[in-house]
Amino acid sequence: MQLGLVGLGRMGGNMRERLRAAGHEVVGYDRDPALSDVASLAELADKLQAPRAVWVMVPAKVTDATIDDLAAVLAAGDIVIDGGNSRFSDDAPRAERLAGRGIGYVDVGVSGGVWGRQNGYGLMVGGADEHVERLMPVFEALKPAGEYGFVHAGPVGAGHYAKMVHNGIEYGLMHAYAEGFELLSAAELVTNVPGVIKSWREGTVVQSWLLDLLDRALDEDPELAELSGWTEDTGEGRWTVDEAVRLGVPLNVITASLFARFASRQDDSPAMKAVSALRQQFGGHAVRKP
Amino acid sequence: MQLGLVGLGRMGGNMRERLRAAGHEVVGYDRDPALSDVASLAELADKLQAPRAVWVMVPAKVTDATIDDLAAVLAAGDIVIDGGNSRFSDDAPRAERLAGRGIGYVDVGVSGGVWGRQNGYGLMVGGADEHVERLMPVFEALKPAGEYGFVHAGPVGAGHYAKMVHNGIEYGLMHAYAEGFELLSAAELVTNVPGVIKSWREGTVVQSWLLDLLDRALDEDPELAELSGWTEDTGEGRWTVDEAVRLGVPLNVITASLFARFASRQDDSPAMKAVSALRQQFGGHAVRKP
Amino acid sequence: MQLGLVGLGRMGGNMRERLRAAGHEVVGYDRDPALSDVASLAELADKLQAPRAVWVMVPAKVTDATIDDLAAVLAAGDIVIDGGNSRFSDDAPRAERLAGRGIGYVDVGVSGGVWGRQNGYGLMVGGADEHVERLMPVFEALKPAGEYGFVHAGPVGAGHYAKMVHNGIEYGLMHAYAEGFELLSAAELVTNVPGVIKSWREGTVVQSWLLDLLDRALDEDPELAELSGWTEDTGEGRWTVDEAVRLGVPLNVITASLFARFASRQDDSPAMKAVSALRQQFGGHAVRKP
Amino acid sequence: MQLGLVGLGRMGGNMRERLRAAGHEVVGYDRDPALSDVASLAELADKLQAPRAVWVMVPAKVTDATIDDLAAVLAAGDIVIDGGNSRFSDDAPRAERLAGRGIGYVDVGVSGGVWGRQNGYGLMVGGADEHVERLMPVFEALKPAGEYGFVHAGPVGAGHYAKMVHNGIEYGLMHAYAEGFELLSAAELVTNVPGVIKSWREGTVVQSWLLDLLDRALDEDPELAELSGWTEDTGEGRWTVDEAVRLGVPLNVITASLFARFASRQDDSPAMKAVSALRQQFGGHAVRKP
Repeated sequence: MQLGLVGLGRMGGNMRERLRAAGHEVVGYDRDPALSDVASLAELADKLQAPRAVWVMVPAKVTDATIDDLAAVLAAGDIVIDGGNSRFSDDAPRAERLAGRGIGYVDVGVSGGVWGRQNGYGLMVGGADEHVERLMPVFEALKPAGEYGFVHAGPVGAGHYAKMVHNGIEYGLMHAYAEGFELLSAAELVTNVPGVIKSWREGTVVQSWLLDLLDRALDEDPELAELSGWTEDTGEGRWTVDEAVRLGVPLNVITASLFARFASRQDDSPAMKAVSALRQQFGGHAVRKP
Repeated sequence: MQLGLVGLGRMGGNMRERLRAAGHEVVGYDRDPALSDVASLAELADKLQAPRAVWVMVPAKVTDATIDDLAAVLAAGDIVIDGGNSRFSDDAPRAERLAGRGIGYVDVGVSGGVWGRQNGYGLMVGGADEHVERLMPVFEALKPAGEYGFVHAGPVGAGHYAKMVHNGIEYGLMHAYAEGFELLSAAELVTNVPGVIKSWREGTVVQSWLLDLLDRALDEDPELAELSGWTEDTGEGRWTVDEAVRLGVPLNVITASLFARFASRQDDSPAMKAVSALRQQFGGHAVRKP
Repeated sequence: MQLGLVGLGRMGGNMRERLRAAGHEVVGYDRDPALSDVASLAELADKLQAPRAVWVMVPAKVTDATIDDLAAVLAAGDIVIDGGNSRFSDDAPRAERLAGRGIGYVDVGVSGGVWGRQNGYGLMVGGADEHVERLMPVFEALKPAGEYGFVHAGPVGAGHYAKMVHNGIEYGLMHAYAEGFELLSAAELVTNVPGVIKSWREGTVVQSWLLDLLDRALDEDPELAELSGWTEDTGEGRWTVDEAVRLGVPLNVITASLFARFASRQDDSPAMKAVSALRQQFGGHAVRKP
Repeated sequence: MQLGLVGLGRMGGNMRERLRAAGHEVVGYDRDPALSDVASLAELADKLQAPRAVWVMVPAKVTDATIDDLAAVLAAGDIVIDGGNSRFSDDAPRAERLAGRGIGYVDVGVSGGVWGRQNGYGLMVGGADEHVERLMPVFEALKPAGEYGFVHAGPVGAGHYAKMVHNGIEYGLMHAYAEGFELLSAAELVTNVPGVIKSWREGTVVQSWLLDLLDRALDEDPELAELSGWTEDTGEGRWTVDEAVRLGVPLNVITASLFARFASRQDDSPAMKAVSALRQQFGGHAVRKP
């Protein structure tokens, strides 16, 4: 089928390739003319036959503006898909704005990172049944070949919600492996830490794709000496904790993983300075000057 | 090769089958005559040609007694392997006792659970190079067919150490998925929680063997209504936290997972009663009677 | 000075008494005629000489409506004070609405609970210097007699912000004591747990008002047998964690305390059911049915 | 009464002064002749009339050796008191060794730090009733003047156990304040953080001695700019977590406080390097080089 695709960066560009390889006709637009198939959103709309489907794959902070621009050149009966990292709570207002013009809206949480072009993308979809059905050929092309990798999770917003939780879990999984790696590295008995990690890739309870990647990283740099622990967080982790707080769900593991990222970006901890100050006050404990 | 195998319960029994299927000659002993190939440890020793290798696969609390009984019927040059869930710190004293009689000792952390017979067991091995080398045919038969699933992690104790950390990570991984499952279940937007879990099995960052098992469990019981949250812990989780404390390694995620199991076994929390008492004292907050 | 006081429940009623005891003229309004000095907000406004100061002390969910009703009977030059448990982010919009009518706005976080009438209330104040100065006689009467217990924390919103963090800390303090109480109660060696708690009230690093209250509670009920661990949370704890997430501050202790309250209200933990399900799947571990 | 006192460092020296001020006859011994009243333990024993009481106040790592030396110069009927930071599990073996010579043993957890000489020390005591009774005059002199500050917590070991839990709670309390301080410092709205802390000293739920000390520290250095967050831990925190693990008590808050100290001493986090490595592998996320 025909698909408009707005945003041809690392993710969007790879998706265009995977869709075309599956025989779909993709008209791509990007602000960078070197990447773009058309000169403008208007031209993109012109090149697609109504009813159109246009997939937006841009940074979350420009998604609303992009969708508003797009809405101006689309028509009733068309569908806009947001496959970016939007917060789920932005989906319903967006769907309502578009519905005012008769345009449908579907949100898709997309997992898989740079491996998606080759392996297929995990897709979590939110929206009305009729919209999702119309888009199934696109989803079939983007998802992995096997029987998994796609879900219609619920109404508008459910796709980004599922992706948010996916990423929260991802934080926890990564940190569990990371703690184990640190403990093994500190232990006197284990003389072959990368070998232990590698061995776990088969036959164990902890085998996973993330473990495969950790092994891959250790093959390249057995002590991770080329890396710093300074780590960003990308929105979904924070939103997951916000949701846990809103819904009253105890989320100790995922939250600890998020907080560890916050801490990784501090040169010194103001909280620990306060602890130092207290120890000095009551115990006369010697403390380190900065 | 020939192998003595002491303990033919769920794990030991399955391992005997996998070893025999690989062409090895296994002489098994169990206190239960219905399972045992021989009537006694002495008969087991008789049936094996020196230098012997005897794998002990019994509950951790009887491992030392079993090894002492075994040592009495073995001879210099033999090797004892402990494949049970021993604490790593028990390995060196055991190796020393056996060395006094000229008997070698190798510790093996075994992962894979009930799936090991079919898929192969993940093996983490500690011991001297010469002992490990002699046992390689046995390890080759027990491990999965692929290139992973076996590591010689270090000297005596390193195998159980690596297995301990493996299990600590396992606690964290399971709890990360569990928190995500709970959050999805509490969310209003996601109408198809089992479908979301299932979709993650391919194309996503969180795909893993544990996730496959969670999907399997949800296929059988979509709301886990047949299960209680009451959960045991089995030693390795506690030892992992003990090691973190000893080595000064911050292990927030794994420890939170362990503590959640402790809490799951409490009818009511004494700590939260104290919090209730305080709130009643300072705020006149209404509190619930038991 | 003259003060209007809207809301004469447990907190407001006590504050009226403390203010009157200090010689101030308080005109109180409550929906309950049995508590109220006047029949309506209009009558309250009539009884006060301009420029008026009216303190609102009502449940957070009706604060905005109450302030809007009040604004309708006040005049330019008057000041509204919100001493309730509002979220700090509600203060600026409220101040702006009132400023449109020339009415000032001051937010006050009030601590001290049922003990405040006797001991004085801890007051954290946000607002413009001129407004705060005009209200100083009221603050002087409400605060404790000593040199502490009052702060002008910053502009509008800063009072509720400081109170929010105060309550977040309170969660952490209470939980630290609670965990210690639980550990002592589980220990074999300590035969006199209430005696240990009582002894800590002087000479120790952990002495505090909360500890005094815990001792008081244990005097009444040495094993807290009359209490349940089911514990509410009241907004400020959640907002504190939301702020930590927004500002990227690692807040492990306070968050763990909040999550423990969430968990205290669950009959069974969905997350732990998922852990049970996984253990059953991979290990054939026996699990408890509900 | 007469008391021998071994170890005249900061704690022991202050205690000698407080005891003498209360009219007791203290014979002090220290390896440093400038501090010592006698030249040897033998001379100390000579100067005391039987039955003797000798209080040992030395670093935990030399306590056992000191007590063994002391036992050699004492006689049946004497009592040894250990007031140092021993692990509770060392008390019973020690008591047994001394009992073999007819010497009694009492363990005392001492709180109060450098403030104890002036304010009195919080004392948590473990031992037999008859031993504790004989020592009451000493305890009365060391404890604060009020009705609190002393407890006979149970048999030998219970004193150090109670002190261990006291310190675990102390970790949690300090960290709760520290997190609140950090959040206030990060907030845009609060322009007077030290003022907020100071105000809390009266009328609030969070008032405590530790809060007084935090205010004192902020008076000296409002932004704690002279301090580093690098923070030691001193045994009791680790033992508290070990006990929680042994007894199956969930201790999230205290453990998080301990782990934060571990993290404060790391230049970079090996765990976070592993997280960085994973993010780079699956997402092509840019990561920082060290």
